[in-house]
Amino acid sequence: MADGTNYPGQDNIRRRFNELKDAFKKLATKMARDWKSSTLLIEYKPFEPAFYHTDIPDWGASLLLCQHAGKNAKVLVDTGHHLPGCNIEQIVALLLNEGRLGGFHFNDRKYADDDLTLGSIDPYAVFRIFNEIAQFEFDSGKQPGAAKIDYMIDQSHNLKPKLEAMVQTVCEAQKLFAKSHLVDRKKLAAAQAKGDIVGAETVLKTAFEADVSGVLAKWRKAHGAAPDPLAELRSSGMIKELGKVRGKNKASGGGGYA
Amino acid sequence: MADGTNYPGQDNIRRRFNELKDAFKKLATKMARDWKSSTLLIEYKPFEPAFYHTDIPDWGASLLLCQHAGKNAKVLVDTGHHLPGCNIEQIVALLLNEGRLGGFHFNDRKYADDDLTLGSIDPYAVFRIFNEIAQFEFDSGKQPGAAKIDYMIDQSHNLKPKLEAMVQTVCEAQKLFAKSHLVDRKKLAAAQAKGDIVGAETVLKTAFEADVSGVLAKWRKAHGAAPDPLAELRSSGMIKELGKVRGKNKASGGGGYA
Amino acid sequence: MADGTNYPGQDNIRRRFNELKDAFKKLATKMARDWKSSTLLIEYKPFEPAFYHTDIPDWGASLLLCQHAGKNAKVLVDTGHHLPGCNIEQIVALLLNEGRLGGFHFNDRKYADDDLTLGSIDPYAVFRIFNEIAQFEFDSGKQPGAAKIDYMIDQSHNLKPKLEAMVQTVCEAQKLFAKSHLVDRKKLAAAQAKGDIVGAETVLKTAFEADVSGVLAKWRKAHGAAPDPLAELRSSGMIKELGKVRGKNKASGGGGYA
Amino acid sequence: MADGTNYPGQDNIRRRFNELKDAFKKLATKMARDWKSSTLLIEYKPFEPAFYHTDIPDWGASLLLCQHAGKNAKVLVDTGHHLPGCNIEQIVALLLNEGRLGGFHFNDRKYADDDLTLGSIDPYAVFRIFNEIAQFEFDSGKQPGAAKIDYMIDQSHNLKPKLEAMVQTVCEAQKLFAKSHLVDRKKLAAAQAKGDIVGAETVLKTAFEADVSGVLAKWRKAHGAAPDPLAELRSSGMIKELGKVRGKNKASGGGGYA
Repeated sequence: MADGTNYPGQDNIRRRFNELKDAFKKLATKMARDWKSSTLLIEYKPFEPAFYHTDIPDWGASLLLCQHAGKNAKVLVDTGHHLPGCNIEQIVALLLNEGRLGGFHFNDRKYADDDLTLGSIDPYAVFRIFNEIAQFEFDSGKQPGAAKIDYMIDQSHNLKPKLEAMVQTVCEAQKLFAKSHLVDRKKLAAAQAKGDIVGAETVLKTAFEADVSGVLAKWRKAHGAAPDPLAELRSSGMIKELGKVRGKNKASGGGGYA
Repeated sequence: MADGTNYPGQDNIRRRFNELKDAFKKLATKMARDWKSSTLLIEYKPFEPAFYHTDIPDWGASLLLCQHAGKNAKVLVDTGHHLPGCNIEQIVALLLNEGRLGGFHFNDRKYADDDLTLGSIDPYAVFRIFNEIAQFEFDSGKQPGAAKIDYMIDQSHNLKPKLEAMVQTVCEAQKLFAKSHLVDRKKLAAAQAKGDIVGAETVLKTAFEADVSGVLAKWRKAHGAAPDPLAELRSSGMIKELGKVRGKNKASGGGGYA
Repeated sequence: MADGTNYPGQDNIRRRFNELKDAFKKLATKMARDWKSSTLLIEYKPFEPAFYHTDIPDWGASLLLCQHAGKNAKVLVDTGHHLPGCNIEQIVALLLNEGRLGGFHFNDRKYADDDLTLGSIDPYAVFRIFNEIAQFEFDSGKQPGAAKIDYMIDQSHNLKPKLEAMVQTVCEAQKLFAKSHLVDRKKLAAAQAKGDIVGAETVLKTAFEADVSGVLAKWRKAHGAAPDPLAELRSSGMIKELGKVRGKNKASGGGGYA
Repeated sequence: MADGTNYPGQDNIRRRFNELKDAFKKLATKMARDWKSSTLLIEYKPFEPAFYHTDIPDWGASLLLCQHAGKNAKVLVDTGHHLPGCNIEQIVALLLNEGRLGGFHFNDRKYADDDLTLGSIDPYAVFRIFNEIAQFEFDSGKQPGAAKIDYMIDQSHNLKPKLEAMVQTVCEAQKLFAKSHLVDRKKLAAAQAKGDIVGAETVLKTAFEADVSGVLAKWRKAHGAAPDPLAELRSSGMIKELGKVRGKNKASGGGGYA
């Protein structure tokens, strides 16, 4: 839902929003009736392709639509859909607090909605998002993963090989997720309680800088996966293989995705 | 309320927000009991003086706090408190739609929260804010002014003479307000309905470019005010007069504000 | 020239820049030899389609390349190619000061490089660009137009009818250009000299708010053009006519541009 | 030099710039004569305290002034003085390329010019700055440190204890500097040459994620410093000690800085 307008006056902002509100309500009601455990995810985006106003520009507008739609509607956070400087981890924390964080579209960016691979521009910012989720689970006495969040990857690779980029993204997400679970939350709370800013910051930074490659390799092996998935992919010849299939399909009119 | 933190980890974002939520609820409840028609205005700000996270960073967070506080809590929009590119008139439209727009802190800016005089950098953007209010009143069959919004001026003049800046701001606000009421709303709706973007845009631009100085001078005269307040102030000698009083007060420890 | 890289490390920033430097130098030298009065225009852009670094990100990089290339190289300013908040009229003033302003790609934008019609989002900002050019010509005792600048329109209309958008843009440019020539430069200089900020600002604003539609209509008539080109275009049936031709061409494989 | 104006029209942008140009030229000429090996550093800043235009808004303007001033004038890069999204490491690379990078004012920020401790918000961005310097030295066959850059810390701590913040900053700078020297530049060049984006990116990331604490502790010991300076400072009682001195000085009208 990235609809909107390109010019001031082009359409009535409120009428459009109210039509969306009604549509989402109908949809959520129908979903609640027909697919019991399903969730309606409402994404937001400040601009592009609409250049003057987007109907759902930010998490506030998404949340409003969710509140009107029903309990089975939640907000989808695309990490690339924010204005410059926006504190995304705070939005994540506030949505978790309201029980309205539905999931993520993961990617990274330096300027606008650049759809680069996760953590390629600002890995510490991604770590801080995972950290807010881990902190929420800790504060509410839940197990890791209890927050039931859908993690999706929404990237567009015009230069990087698509399969490599995908494997790279999953590895980066696992790495930063693992690091966020190394934060010593009791020590952090203690430092926060006495107003020891440098101490509290150091707790976060220590976890961010920890080497988790060994732990991840072990975990991957235990789950029957390659310890270094990117190296495995590169040496496997799989990309070449898929390239051949893709060539054939293309010749016969089919699409390819390796 | 521009509290927050300067560094990641410095404090628990969610705990701080929940404490604010409880405090505003108590306050709003007490206000509803003790001063019947009073309104609690909750302002937001993305940064400064807090440099990592501000407890109430945007209208979404303000609105959430208002919803938890009660019906007498509304959002205060400071035109300078937004990230670069933010569509402020859309926020105004959405808050009016929810019955939660409480008022404005008026000022203008080019970069961060610069507190310049209203309309000094982007007058068309201010016009569009007034336009959304007028459109709301038109759509809901209300008289101009029915939206009950508190207009305040929040500017900080380190270079401009304060009284001149204030008079200049009020005149600019009156001018842009008057222009927004010249928008031909039926013609606008017709152009929007047939998807005539250039036509719809032209309706707005025509009102923005209209010369309203005559109308305003007449209105001011009818209300016993000077037709050109800034010229009146400059020729009145009032600033000099106040300067003398101020000098005396300063000498005796008092403050000044001319 | 919007080449660059998408990821840190993807390529060597300096080597790429130096290759560009050499290429532009050869080109400018050849142009100076073969087409005497030609000018090499070097445009800049901070991002898109390159998402990590663009080889020529800003006017500083363009100017450097021009200096290395020769006297016949000048900077091309696309009004949409700047980071948020950038003071474009200052860049125009500094380039004029160096004798290196070659021309413009005109368009407007609210967020990134949105390619909207000129003045549709922030007309006062466009006025200030024309004002710096007029001020430069005034300060250096030149006739209006003496600054020899190429004005080009670089917009991309996915929603607005292309011909209407083009006529609208030319009219807007003429309007804001005319207004910039109404600035009382002696009065402005006098107010600046005594540090009268409100007075100086008022000189600019008075010109910006002046109604120039009569003057422009007269000038157009005198030059054999329609006094209101947009109304003329709309009532002329020309768009329909071109639409038919375009339909035919499309059927026979040709392109269209109405 | 953060002078400028707050309002359009307040002063003549070009005249002010030309006055600065003349002043810097005189200054640089006098410095070259009187202090042979001295360098004039010209810093830039896009906004604050000036809110409409700053006389030297960006590196392009600084470089122009340096070129006019003479060979002993160089650009000073304050990492916090850029518009949102600006690629700072590219500016560093281009200035090194021109022989005009004079030094740094180090700090970090999330929004405007926040003066936070270096690397506290985006450590990977700081690493990339050091990486461009190391790459320049490698490409030009120079020893590390040969680029003769003045590193200064320009931070303002309203919440963090000043001494702790300073020690933290120096440690962070050493850490990111060390990591940038772990980049395998031959492997990087090879990956770049075959257009292997993921491979090239991985070379940078591997260095950034390397644990350099052991190397730094060893280096500090060898230079007679504490292996973990922040822990040393915290356990040393020095802050308390200085606090007492400061208390006394304050009582007797003196300033303090611990």
